[in-house]
Amino acid sequence: MATIGDIAVAAAINIITALIFLIAFAFLRLQPVNDRVYFPKWYIKGLRTSPTASDGTFVTKFVNLDYRSYLTFLNWVPAALTMPQSELIDHAGLDSVVYLRIYLLGLKIFTPIFLFTWAILIPVNWTNNTLEQSQDTYSQIDKLSISNIPHASPRFWAHVAMAYLVMIWTCFMLKKEYETVANMRFYCLQSENHRPDQFTVLVKNVPRDDHESVSETVDNFFLVNHHDNYLTHQVVYNANKLAKLVKKKQKKQNWLDYYQIKYSKNPSKRPMMKTGFLGLWGAKVDAIEHHETEITKLSDEVNINPSIFGKIIYMLARDFMHFSIQIAEERKNVMDDPKAILPVAFVSFKTRWGAAVAAQTQQVRNPTLWLTEWAPEPRDVYWKNLAIPYVSLTVRKVIMGVAFFFLTFFYVIPIAFVQSLANIEGIEKAVPFLKPLINIKLIKSFIQGFLPGIVLKIFLKLLPKILMMMSKFEGFLSISRLERRCASRYYLFKFVNVFLGSIIAGAAFEQLSTFLNQPASRIPETIGIAIPMKATFFITYIMVDGWSGTAGEILRLKRLIIYHLKNIFLVKTERDREKAMNPGSIGFNTGEPQIQFYFLIGLVYAVVTPLLIPFILVFFGLAFVVYRHQVINVYNPKYESRAAFWPDVHGRVITALIISQVLLMGLLSTKHAAASTPVLLALPVLTMGFHIYCKGRFEPAFTRYPLQEAINKDTLDRVKEPNLSLNLKGYLEHAYIHPVFKDDGSDDHYEDGTPNVPTKRHTRPEPSRTNEEEVLQEKHKP
Amino acid sequence: MATIGDIAVAAAINIITALIFLIAFAFLRLQPVNDRVYFPKWYIKGLRTSPTASDGTFVTKFVNLDYRSYLTFLNWVPAALTMPQSELIDHAGLDSVVYLRIYLLGLKIFTPIFLFTWAILIPVNWTNNTLEQSQDTYSQIDKLSISNIPHASPRFWAHVAMAYLVMIWTCFMLKKEYETVANMRFYCLQSENHRPDQFTVLVKNVPRDDHESVSETVDNFFLVNHHDNYLTHQVVYNANKLAKLVKKKQKKQNWLDYYQIKYSKNPSKRPMMKTGFLGLWGAKVDAIEHHETEITKLSDEVNINPSIFGKIIYMLARDFMHFSIQIAEERKNVMDDPKAILPVAFVSFKTRWGAAVAAQTQQVRNPTLWLTEWAPEPRDVYWKNLAIPYVSLTVRKVIMGVAFFFLTFFYVIPIAFVQSLANIEGIEKAVPFLKPLINIKLIKSFIQGFLPGIVLKIFLKLLPKILMMMSKFEGFLSISRLERRCASRYYLFKFVNVFLGSIIAGAAFEQLSTFLNQPASRIPETIGIAIPMKATFFITYIMVDGWSGTAGEILRLKRLIIYHLKNIFLVKTERDREKAMNPGSIGFNTGEPQIQFYFLIGLVYAVVTPLLIPFILVFFGLAFVVYRHQVINVYNPKYESRAAFWPDVHGRVITALIISQVLLMGLLSTKHAAASTPVLLALPVLTMGFHIYCKGRFEPAFTRYPLQEAINKDTLDRVKEPNLSLNLKGYLEHAYIHPVFKDDGSDDHYEDGTPNVPTKRHTRPEPSRTNEEEVLQEKHKP
Repeated sequence: MATIGDIAVAAAINIITALIFLIAFAFLRLQPVNDRVYFPKWYIKGLRTSPTASDGTFVTKFVNLDYRSYLTFLNWVPAALTMPQSELIDHAGLDSVVYLRIYLLGLKIFTPIFLFTWAILIPVNWTNNTLEQSQDTYSQIDKLSISNIPHASPRFWAHVAMAYLVMIWTCFMLKKEYETVANMRFYCLQSENHRPDQFTVLVKNVPRDDHESVSETVDNFFLVNHHDNYLTHQVVYNANKLAKLVKKKQKKQNWLDYYQIKYSKNPSKRPMMKTGFLGLWGAKVDAIEHHETEITKLSDEVNINPSIFGKIIYMLARDFMHFSIQIAEERKNVMDDPKAILPVAFVSFKTRWGAAVAAQTQQVRNPTLWLTEWAPEPRDVYWKNLAIPYVSLTVRKVIMGVAFFFLTFFYVIPIAFVQSLANIEGIEKAVPFLKPLINIKLIKSFIQGFLPGIVLKIFLKLLPKILMMMSKFEGFLSISRLERRCASRYYLFKFVNVFLGSIIAGAAFEQLSTFLNQPASRIPETIGIAIPMKATFFITYIMVDGWSGTAGEILRLKRLIIYHLKNIFLVKTERDREKAMNPGSIGFNTGEPQIQFYFLIGLVYAVVTPLLIPFILVFFGLAFVVYRHQVINVYNPKYESRAAFWPDVHGRVITALIISQVLLMGLLSTKHAAASTPVLLALPVLTMGFHIYCKGRFEPAFTRYPLQEAINKDTLDRVKEPNLSLNLKGYLEHAYIHPVFKDDGSDDHYEDGTPNVPTKRHTRPEPSRTNEEEVLQEKHKP
Repeated sequence: MATIGDIAVAAAINIITALIFLIAFAFLRLQPVNDRVYFPKWYIKGLRTSPTASDGTFVTKFVNLDYRSYLTFLNWVPAALTMPQSELIDHAGLDSVVYLRIYLLGLKIFTPIFLFTWAILIPVNWTNNTLEQSQDTYSQIDKLSISNIPHASPRFWAHVAMAYLVMIWTCFMLKKEYETVANMRFYCLQSENHRPDQFTVLVKNVPRDDHESVSETVDNFFLVNHHDNYLTHQVVYNANKLAKLVKKKQKKQNWLDYYQIKYSKNPSKRPMMKTGFLGLWGAKVDAIEHHETEITKLSDEVNINPSIFGKIIYMLARDFMHFSIQIAEERKNVMDDPKAILPVAFVSFKTRWGAAVAAQTQQVRNPTLWLTEWAPEPRDVYWKNLAIPYVSLTVRKVIMGVAFFFLTFFYVIPIAFVQSLANIEGIEKAVPFLKPLINIKLIKSFIQGFLPGIVLKIFLKLLPKILMMMSKFEGFLSISRLERRCASRYYLFKFVNVFLGSIIAGAAFEQLSTFLNQPASRIPETIGIAIPMKATFFITYIMVDGWSGTAGEILRLKRLIIYHLKNIFLVKTERDREKAMNPGSIGFNTGEPQIQFYFLIGLVYAVVTPLLIPFILVFFGLAFVVYRHQVINVYNPKYESRAAFWPDVHGRVITALIISQVLLMGLLSTKHAAASTPVLLALPVLTMGFHIYCKGRFEPAFTRYPLQEAINKDTLDRVKEPNLSLNLKGYLEHAYIHPVFKDDGSDDHYEDGTPNVPTKRHTRPEPSRTNEEEVLQEKHKP
């Protein structure tokens, strides 16, 4: 039982940690050398250039010597908050803006709940002496919670009333927010320029025809069935093998670059090599010859200078050439082979109306053929999964459902197995020659103490990646949908293993067997009764994960280190540096479940232990500022789904609400407050009713394109750009091309989707260098 | 424990009962006087006329004296079976034909299961002596069941293998059937003549506009958003009040007719009266005057002839006139009042393609406005619910969900209450003057013995009506959907109260509390262990409900009696006689759950007690023949949904399959056959996978109209009838009119929907009279 003192100490520690992170950030971000780590978004937008390109003394290139800038080290906070929402949408996209609204939603929901529960429940709880009379040990925190109310007390009606208030307020805010987001989405659709996905429909499962190519089949079908609207289409090649090769080649090149830089420290013939190999990048068919001469040159060099680096470079270069030839051949194969054309096509229409009609209707009798759906953005397409045949999708879904079930409930078993292997005796047996080393006391205690923990830690770090792999296996066709699927699974995992796992100690599969062997009505009681006792645990959790973790996010320590390492070892050109800065994205698949976890804790404890609410409020406030700053200055979204994830967000808050209501029911039934049970029973029913209503009222806005909107936008276009329809075909004909067929074959997301138009921006990050205003529109290319 | 002897006796009794019913039917149906009861379908089609219209002696009008026809009294069976399917579709509609296929599906699924289980499981079960060694009493039937296998015997693998076989075979047949039905549906859509619902979309929630009428709003909206396809529309009037008045008037008229016939036995002035009052039928606005004179005449008459009948007739006629005036006024009100126009419209398009597009797309940003759906047939529309505002629909759904839950689990409580009231003391207290009567021994024992049972019986008889009222309250817009909803609820009710209720004795709410207070994993065990013991109960149930009940259905005893009563007391004209014959319809809402119940029992017992299967086979065979006969000769469908109910049928068989698998798992786990549990666990998972696959593959065929089908049919039409598009508007303009606005204001379903075209029929019901071939196309109208 933690006392208020314990909590205060933990709070102090975490506040100090968070402050250290924030001060470190404030200091590091002012150094020009870190500029690309803390402001990558502006580099990508072309609104900021590398300090190396500017003049100034050598030292000022790396360190900020202007003492004045340190005095205002916290002014990133107002800067992050002042950019207006409409400008932020232009700057970072609707997805990011709506994502930030989740934090705001947290503030909006929990601030009134905080005020009410503290004003009403804390006095109601405090003015009892149940705990003082009982024999158990207790802390002041428990005195503030529902535990302090005697059995069958009429005071429980205050909690019941509060539960209703919480539900009504949460639902009211959720509805308002759903409405706002839906309107923002439509406004965005209505105001943005024409984009290929507005006119395009993704058609899956085009039936094979022996006498026609896929392209002809698609053409004929849409000319007949969408006669007035059909414009053009693009077939999709199965370029998975090619993409693999390109990836391998890139990896090889990275190593090659690395060794070449090392090698270049013997300064002989360096420049010649460099241009030579960078020419290979983006090889075409005629490059083969070029390669061969290159290799000959290299082998000469190796003969001249038979150092170890020389040999490695020679070998790498040979492999590299090998890949280049393979890629060229594979590319030719893919383009020529009719079998490499997948039964999938991106079909474009003359009007948005035509596309909206095609996307929302069933085309033929067999509903598994000619499946149409609103095409994702070109950069959002997950090309690899387009090659998965439809029949296997159900099987894949079932397999992944079962796999996820086992992952959630039984993941502890393989980890325990690995942990059992990773003990001293096991290692001694496996690698006997390490025995003397292991027997050193320090190493021994390290292995015994940390190894098991590390195995679990590694698994939890890998979990989002595992979930992403599972989603990919399931066959979703766009990155946005992959991330949404991951998010919901991650949330489920966290709910079972962190929430339930913390409340009822024991591994998930033990809980599972408990639940299966327990009456259904007892389950909420079992959990409910444990909830007030775990309040201090969750308060600590919020401070560590929510406060320090969020402050750590802004520091980007890992990215900072990697950037500098890359900068030292790999970066040769401006382009390399751009690749090295790797801004990352907001990470919906891990970030959103984290926020949702706070909603869950907050709603569960709102009535039970109101003391917890302010901790959550601090998290939401801090996270909002931090992530708004990151969205403005750092993250570069991989896609723009126009807030398509909102129904998921809404649904999970509703889930949390219902869970909190059921658990409260369980808790109160153990408190002999039976009279309140029927009243509480109405809560989840009402919440479900609200959810059904919202689903009908708002969800279609996120999945369909209403015909009226489409036709309005079409009409507007026709007035504004009367000759648009003439250019449209050319514009759409090559909008959806697998990235490996693009000239450089690279995967850079920020190069193919959005045009690099400078935003109509007024606010900018405050100057960290004197020459900051100098804007370079063109990137240096080798 | 019933022995094989008991079963044999029960079988004999039921076979005899069924035979008596069949012989009675064979005899009664040959009597010309019953012709309209047993062949109403042919009268409605206009292919058969009343024997009263024919010549012949007086006696042969009522009784068949031709002894030869009695010799072949069973030849209705081949006659029912010989009509080919395509002809049956023409004759009775696709719904009926597909409904009959459910019985066939039962035969197809259970015949091989019967063969396999009897060949394998019966010997496996029989060749043990577990029961002989045990102390319990047992019967020969138990020796044939799984109960005879010793604990943890390897023989259980035979049952597990059989469970797999049952699943694979059932799923295979289900898939084949789903495919066939979907194709039949499309074939039907493709081959039928143009019908209004093919071109029409039902638009709900048209937004109100202060400056425009609903009609103008609809016109403007579709002219803009479906410019190329929009043709015309019809607004819907809120005629619920009017319909109520019309109904009241009809009721009054029935009584009036009844008394007039009674009165006419004093033969004074009879003919004058008759023509007078039949003129009122179909009253228009100018009828008011006419009525008044009529009433004056009547009051004169009453003065002349002040008998009790005369007074009643006078009063009724006054009421009747009053209603007629009210109706005329209300009709005028509705037509003139802009507020009586509901925000609902039937919008028709130039092509099927246009209608298919409009029905499948979202129209505006707000998904609760301009809701479009494929319009039901005109006669299928449930007009009353068109007036329900959209916002209340969610609330209504939730209320009905809760209400149904209570109805299912707690219906016993009010019945027990009524039963407790209906005891001797209660009645004596309530109506003390009946005391002497009640104290008569016979009446006393009758009340004590039968009343409680009758209360339950009445409730169960009323249940389908209660469920239908609940569905109506929920706001479904077509009769077909109402019936489908009722069917699924009725099935659930039967599952809980008949299936579970019979296996675990005790009322449903007691079960509910048992289940809530029992571990989830124990529930299948609790039920599973009781299953083999209840086999004899279900065998008896099948024989009573399935054999005798089905044979009783063909006799139509209730309808026969009502027809003859009406014939004696009410019928004056040919038209009255037509109304009196009331063919009824197949009754999907009660019939289908009954069949499904046999699927459930069959699948549950297939592996446990294979002895039960042949009883089910007999049911399916008998019911198929009986209902095929009824569909050909009796039922007149209220609507034609083109087999839209099949996904429900499929889903419920899948449900039964999964229930059977879970229960088998529970049963085997009590048999210490733990090794088989993981193998069995795969069964429901595989079945669910199959269901998801089928849902994706076939279900859209029943809810959407594929664009290719629509455009093919459009093209065909254009070639066949080049001037169709000119006539289309006139054809569609008045297709959807509330029946009360039709001239006679009556509700006759077989008068407004399908044209009375004689079918291209070859087979006919065998002659029961000599003048049968004489066909009267025109009905006598007063």
